[in-house]
Amino acid sequence: MTAQGRPPVTVVGLGSMGAALAQAFLDAGHPTTVWNRTAAKAASLVERGATLAASVDDAVRAGPLVVTCLTGYDDTRQALEPATASLSGRVLVPLNSGVPASARDFAVWAAGHGARVLDGAVKNVPAAVGAADTLIYYGGDRSAFDEHSDTLRVLGGRTEFLGDEPDLAVFYESAVGATLLPALVGFFQGAAAAQARGLPVSALVPYSVAWLEMIGSVLPTFAEEIDSGDYSAAASSVNLFLAGIAWDEEFGREAGVDTAWQAPLHDLIRRAAAAGHGEHSVAALVEVLRRPE
Amino acid sequence: MTAQGRPPVTVVGLGSMGAALAQAFLDAGHPTTVWNRTAAKAASLVERGATLAASVDDAVRAGPLVVTCLTGYDDTRQALEPATASLSGRVLVPLNSGVPASARDFAVWAAGHGARVLDGAVKNVPAAVGAADTLIYYGGDRSAFDEHSDTLRVLGGRTEFLGDEPDLAVFYESAVGATLLPALVGFFQGAAAAQARGLPVSALVPYSVAWLEMIGSVLPTFAEEIDSGDYSAAASSVNLFLAGIAWDEEFGREAGVDTAWQAPLHDLIRRAAAAGHGEHSVAALVEVLRRPE
Repeated sequence: MTAQGRPPVTVVGLGSMGAALAQAFLDAGHPTTVWNRTAAKAASLVERGATLAASVDDAVRAGPLVVTCLTGYDDTRQALEPATASLSGRVLVPLNSGVPASARDFAVWAAGHGARVLDGAVKNVPAAVGAADTLIYYGGDRSAFDEHSDTLRVLGGRTEFLGDEPDLAVFYESAVGATLLPALVGFFQGAAAAQARGLPVSALVPYSVAWLEMIGSVLPTFAEEIDSGDYSAAASSVNLFLAGIAWDEEFGREAGVDTAWQAPLHDLIRRAAAAGHGEHSVAALVEVLRRPE
Repeated sequence: MTAQGRPPVTVVGLGSMGAALAQAFLDAGHPTTVWNRTAAKAASLVERGATLAASVDDAVRAGPLVVTCLTGYDDTRQALEPATASLSGRVLVPLNSGVPASARDFAVWAAGHGARVLDGAVKNVPAAVGAADTLIYYGGDRSAFDEHSDTLRVLGGRTEFLGDEPDLAVFYESAVGATLLPALVGFFQGAAAAQARGLPVSALVPYSVAWLEMIGSVLPTFAEEIDSGDYSAAASSVNLFLAGIAWDEEFGREAGVDTAWQAPLHDLIRRAAAAGHGEHSVAALVEVLRRPE
């Protein structure tokens, strides 16, 4: 496709992520129309070639592909409400947070106005938008993905389609994203301990990065164990983690760090051991995480 | 150094990690003496060329470098007790878990018997021992590290010296390792949710691995923020995580997963926001993790 032939795109919602998305479209030569409740946020994008729509309806009518980047599905619907008459035939790409049920409701609402939905999740920070290894995945209308995947790939080189269900991206977002806050708090705890010892936190970083890589390298094995339900070939057993609990607690005391947030994690370990998983792989924790209903 | 000239090494403690360490020494051509309380565990190593010592004292006297791989420092001291008369002039390399205070006590005990200590931590799983990118770091006696680093590098290509303090490796182990259990529980929660939806857990893995890489990529920025105490240039704010709490909880309900373990993490977010860090980087969580004393 030549630069001249790049299809027009619309970006609604210009927070840090939305602005990064609009900028990536501009950089790739797409005629880019933007809209934001607070128009001032569009100023720097307009300077770099974006068109600021006078209304959200004008923004929607500017092209076949409307990327929205607001906080949640409710905000997105509210923002698009004045433009419902113009949604027919367009593809909506909501890139907000939320829960699967809200994504399904949104798809029904959009279909009621004649729009197709390609629900996505940007698996990275705004600064990474547009990079070759940035992952963005989508679920929903496959024909919409096929028509617009070249355009969407401008936002992230790893642009993937998860499947036809309109809530898949937000489901994956929640299921995959569940490691973020706990991993960060673990890192911050180590950082607090380093500071208490007079060490710069930056000294931990290369080792922390290598450690996260190590964790990533064992996930395929854990996934196989969970999918098969066979936890017997344990490289890292529940009992190994059980033995570490006392050290975790003593380290917290010695380092002057509040480790109370670890208590429920330790309880999960103890519950798994009590349920007979002591010599099993730590992946057997999945068995105690299922909500009994 | 020629294979012929490889110095002899001793490995005490032949659990899965100890056996992997002994095997790596054998593979590299080191005359390798092993000892384990249960001698049967040495059988397969002996088949591949290791010498099984008749006593721990014989094991210690077999060479200048004694690597121990038991559960904790107490076990290590107990195992070495019959060999204390032979420790003088040797280098002890304890590769067990524990807390910094125990590592310091161990170093004092070893010095009392005339041994130098190089306390280490293998930052990977047994199957990775011997690989070029496997990280093992050490703290303690620098002359011991300089003398034996070529030998130790056989166990992991990334062999690093942290500093002279004998508890540094175990400190780093605890500080860096604090991401492991919480990150795994986050992954297992996503796995439980996937299963509840009828998705194979293996489908999550490539995205979970990419997500951990993303987390690693932002740690340098967080470390800078914490080291400088300036949280004002927030790419990911406390308020962003605050907004996500309700979604975390709703996702857990919808997916049929017990997310109670997240409650104290959410409390940390709320406490950071209440302390005025709402618009600050989420790295400001470090400020509420410090134990008030």
